Amino acid sequence: MFGIKADPNNFDLEVVVLGSHLIDDYGLLYFLLSLQGEIVKKYSQSNPKTYEERIDLILKMCVEAATEAVQFNCRILGVDISTGGRVNPHEGVLLHSTKLIQEWNFIDLRTPISDALHLPVWVDNDGNCAALAEKKFGQGKGVENFVTVITDTGIGGGIIHHNELVHGSTFCAAELGHIMVSLDGPECLCGSRGCIEAYASGMALQREAKKLHDEDMLLVEGMPVNNEEPVSSVHLIQAAKLGNSKADNTLTTAGVALAVGIVNILHTVNLSLVILSGVLATHYENTVKHVVSQRALTSAQGANVVTSELEEPALLGAASMVLDYTARRIY
Amino acid sequence: MFGIKADPNNFDLEVVVLGSHLIDDYGLLYFLLSLQGEIVKKYSQSNPKTYEERIDLILKMCVEAATEAVQFNCRILGVDISTGGRVNPHEGVLLHSTKLIQEWNFIDLRTPISDALHLPVWVDNDGNCAALAEKKFGQGKGVENFVTVITDTGIGGGIIHHNELVHGSTFCAAELGHIMVSLDGPECLCGSRGCIEAYASGMALQREAKKLHDEDMLLVEGMPVNNEEPVSSVHLIQAAKLGNSKADNTLTTAGVALAVGIVNILHTVNLSLVILSGVLATHYENTVKHVVSQRALTSAQGANVVTSELEEPALLGAASMVLDYTARRIY
Repeated sequence: MFGIKADPNNFDLEVVVLGSHLIDDYGLLYFLLSLQGEIVKKYSQSNPKTYEERIDLILKMCVEAATEAVQFNCRILGVDISTGGRVNPHEGVLLHSTKLIQEWNFIDLRTPISDALHLPVWVDNDGNCAALAEKKFGQGKGVENFVTVITDTGIGGGIIHHNELVHGSTFCAAELGHIMVSLDGPECLCGSRGCIEAYASGMALQREAKKLHDEDMLLVEGMPVNNEEPVSSVHLIQAAKLGNSKADNTLTTAGVALAVGIVNILHTVNLSLVILSGVLATHYENTVKHVVSQRALTSAQGANVVTSELEEPALLGAASMVLDYTARRIY
Repeated sequence: MFGIKADPNNFDLEVVVLGSHLIDDYGLLYFLLSLQGEIVKKYSQSNPKTYEERIDLILKMCVEAATEAVQFNCRILGVDISTGGRVNPHEGVLLHSTKLIQEWNFIDLRTPISDALHLPVWVDNDGNCAALAEKKFGQGKGVENFVTVITDTGIGGGIIHHNELVHGSTFCAAELGHIMVSLDGPECLCGSRGCIEAYASGMALQREAKKLHDEDMLLVEGMPVNNEEPVSSVHLIQAAKLGNSKADNTLTTAGVALAVGIVNILHTVNLSLVILSGVLATHYENTVKHVVSQRALTSAQGANVVTSELEEPALLGAASMVLDYTARRIY
């Protein structure tokens, strides 16, 4: 079910990696990966609300995957957990999470999983994992300095400098969602204001969509109406496309805010590539390109802006760490 | 005149370094440094407006210093030029300067100076040099990750990551003055808006002081008046201290803008120390500390904020590069 049926004489295909990804409140995923970075099997469950249930489910899923892999004559090299929040990757400990994941602070993830599976276990922040995935399998291949900026429910990312992840002095580098582009601006979950997450994340767009909806200004002619469905960023984008100028203005401001935040990153660490990732990435790509060309210093304008081509970059990056650490090979 | 009189039997004191610093339009400095980082002699001239005159003067000053050093039985180890603008330190070439220095683009500084003096020559950006100085002689000693932010005429700085300078992919990392903290905000010399340089630099404060002056709202009772003197940031600060609330508000906004920019740096590369430097540093220190405690993520709030204790950090850093490269010793 989760392994790849391998030829015992072909060692390149016999190796399977387990990556696990905690994405916000949406779900808990894990998957098996071939050495070539092909996702062989992906499996998801909704993310439990409590620590106990969550850690139990992670363990159960890991054991299941390992069992399946053995049945399919495959070898699990190790486990990597990609999670939101601040992680000490040396110790495999989640220091503290964003407010998006409940009961998820000061948690040793390495010990219980390693004890249960007798496998090496790594843990890193999801944005960092996504950057590793781009480096190994995506558009960051061969690029020495780049950033990936992920716009989903929140905004995160990871920075590669001299081919290595930047973790920072207390493991909270690349908290890109909390780059501020306004001295006041909208309130952010973090307690500050004007963060790009408060302008351009899925949550922020949903907040704006609800505001317009409450004023009866969201729906426009031609929009399919489903009263059961909660108002979300999808409706805002749809309304803008159908000519709702208020929705369009909101989205433009969101895109400009994200882009100005990205220019700030470029002016701080001067990268040659920006990889936009997450469900809103394609939506923001053109605005980011335009704003970089308008507001970055000439010397920083050379940075390429692209959209990620990877499916599940955080997950893929988690698995790539296992490959890199255990196999120590160049693929 | 510029050397240190050395005991030929004491090799530690016999070594002298020449550092040269182009500070904006104000002046061209050079100095001699003992191995212990003590400034033995500092000499300055006003910075000529044209390339020809400037390069001639640099050469003349270098030759003078070298001659003096020999007369005093000292040895010049090398020359380092610290300059505003973007520098390729590997090739000793100034790629392009800020608008503050005229006729200062695509200039090979290494060749003419090296040819004239038969000495190794290094070149780097002044903000980067200042960071090196803090690392070697200042509060960055023994600190793995820190930033120095310099508020003078403009705003610049340098970032140390894993004990090394961050130069970036096109040598324009740490363009800290052009971190934007507003989607609109005041116009900046760089062509964008809302840059911290446009809020909190000496130029920005002067612009605001002039505005108030033109409206007859700058001077308050008790302020010494000198009609000959051009209106500057000094007057704004003085007026604020004497109770001018408009001047005080302007300065508070400037400080908050600078601080929000600094929080953005912390959220990007997560440093453990912020060293404020430049003539306005002490003025901004408290505001920066306060804003970091209010608006940085809990995990980034541990960053220490201090004011530089170094005299001429850019110059000192330039000289420290010479020491590091030629002597390869730990001091």
